[in-house]
Amino acid sequence: MYSQTITPAFYDTDSLGHINNTRVPQWFEGARNELFRIFTPDLDVKKWQLIMARIEVDYLGELFYGRDVEVRTYVCKIGNSSFTVLQEAWQDGKLNAKGKAFMVRYDFANGRAQSLTDEQKGMLGVHFKEDV
Amino acid sequence: MYSQTITPAFYDTDSLGHINNTRVPQWFEGARNELFRIFTPDLDVKKWQLIMARIEVDYLGELFYGRDVEVRTYVCKIGNSSFTVLQEAWQDGKLNAKGKAFMVRYDFANGRAQSLTDEQKGMLGVHFKEDV
Amino acid sequence: MYSQTITPAFYDTDSLGHINNTRVPQWFEGARNELFRIFTPDLDVKKWQLIMARIEVDYLGELFYGRDVEVRTYVCKIGNSSFTVLQEAWQDGKLNAKGKAFMVRYDFANGRAQSLTDEQKGMLGVHFKEDV
Amino acid sequence: MYSQTITPAFYDTDSLGHINNTRVPQWFEGARNELFRIFTPDLDVKKWQLIMARIEVDYLGELFYGRDVEVRTYVCKIGNSSFTVLQEAWQDGKLNAKGKAFMVRYDFANGRAQSLTDEQKGMLGVHFKEDV
Repeated sequence: MYSQTITPAFYDTDSLGHINNTRVPQWFEGARNELFRIFTPDLDVKKWQLIMARIEVDYLGELFYGRDVEVRTYVCKIGNSSFTVLQEAWQDGKLNAKGKAFMVRYDFANGRAQSLTDEQKGMLGVHFKEDV
Repeated sequence: MYSQTITPAFYDTDSLGHINNTRVPQWFEGARNELFRIFTPDLDVKKWQLIMARIEVDYLGELFYGRDVEVRTYVCKIGNSSFTVLQEAWQDGKLNAKGKAFMVRYDFANGRAQSLTDEQKGMLGVHFKEDV
Repeated sequence: MYSQTITPAFYDTDSLGHINNTRVPQWFEGARNELFRIFTPDLDVKKWQLIMARIEVDYLGELFYGRDVEVRTYVCKIGNSSFTVLQEAWQDGKLNAKGKAFMVRYDFANGRAQSLTDEQKGMLGVHFKEDV
Repeated sequence: MYSQTITPAFYDTDSLGHINNTRVPQWFEGARNELFRIFTPDLDVKKWQLIMARIEVDYLGELFYGRDVEVRTYVCKIGNSSFTVLQEAWQDGKLNAKGKAFMVRYDFANGRAQSLTDEQKGMLGVHFKEDV
């Protein structure tokens, strides 16, 4: 598991008085930074290897401004050239949002999906958590 | 169908040279404005009736800065107190992103889901499109 | 003058019930698109010629969700290699935000400022408005 | 001085391969959280006392994805009902963006500016730095 602590900013809120739903996919992308380093250790975009195929977010409760949020990042599925990231946003001891990101290892030069290496599969596997 | 034309801004891009994936849920929320008026005609948040339960976005192709994007908004399922919005982002005649938003009619004063009225169901039904 | 109409989205608001101040520089950047075409007609970033040196925004009144905003874009100063964009956000017939963006024509290959051509100065001049 | 460490996210970048200029006012707003607690210790928006009158940002160098950014927050001017926040974004030991936020203590119930209390002036003064 990767853990990232987010201190919500005022602009993360909306006029319903809570964190706007569209900020959650952004927080989740930010929290995938360390996982991206498996593919591009220095995060240099010129060596980027990933594309985003799909996201899902379940809003289980409200997130609020004024208290920190912990984003926990796991890997719940490892395929041949793709894998699924499972992410959770916790605040006040409560799981308030849960998401998945379906990512594909991609060869930008040749414009096609590329198999994950065994080393990459191993490094992703360290963060495995079953999606229940 | 509701149609909204979006002119991508420079800040919508990311360093892969295309529109960042996290902007799509924001564009889709913006494009639900007219649908929100079914519940709150003047969009006054004090009379708000909706909460977001879940989103899904499939990234089918890249969206780019420099040309307009059309977001088409439909309703693909109408339940008792909830409904599903189906949205598509088109650019250069190509469907590049497709999403769903699962929304619930909510009674904020009493903190619980609330049945859709027949009138609301009828107005949502005008925008019905089967999800294939 | 360039004019762009913005339909505020729910995520543009914050919990004070109005448009968050940090959205205004983003709307203003979006509204500079047509001005960017003076330098890069097809908006292809590989041919980009501009860098941002400074922004200023005065918040004169509140902007709200639910009604369109018109962003008016002018040029208030044209220098040798730089120029200043003057922008205004109008809603309900009222000027609610006013900003300036100080931009520099830049030669990215050689890493230095570059003089504006006479043609560029002429095209910028079409949109001139004195800053009062 | 308040110090906040920001780990740039992929969506903070733009297609010029650096952090987009419009993200800086957002990072700066996020970094004002602790200063906001002088006025509203629990950050409850119902007790909010501040409005934003003006921002300025100077972009002195590029900020990049892949390395942390430190935002340093000072107060450079304390008036009767207003004060000016001075903020700096540092990366790799270099000051790359500098901004000011002109904020006013505001009585939302009565719709007018309100004098800073001596206690508030004292707490702001702890973070004083001259603007040079």
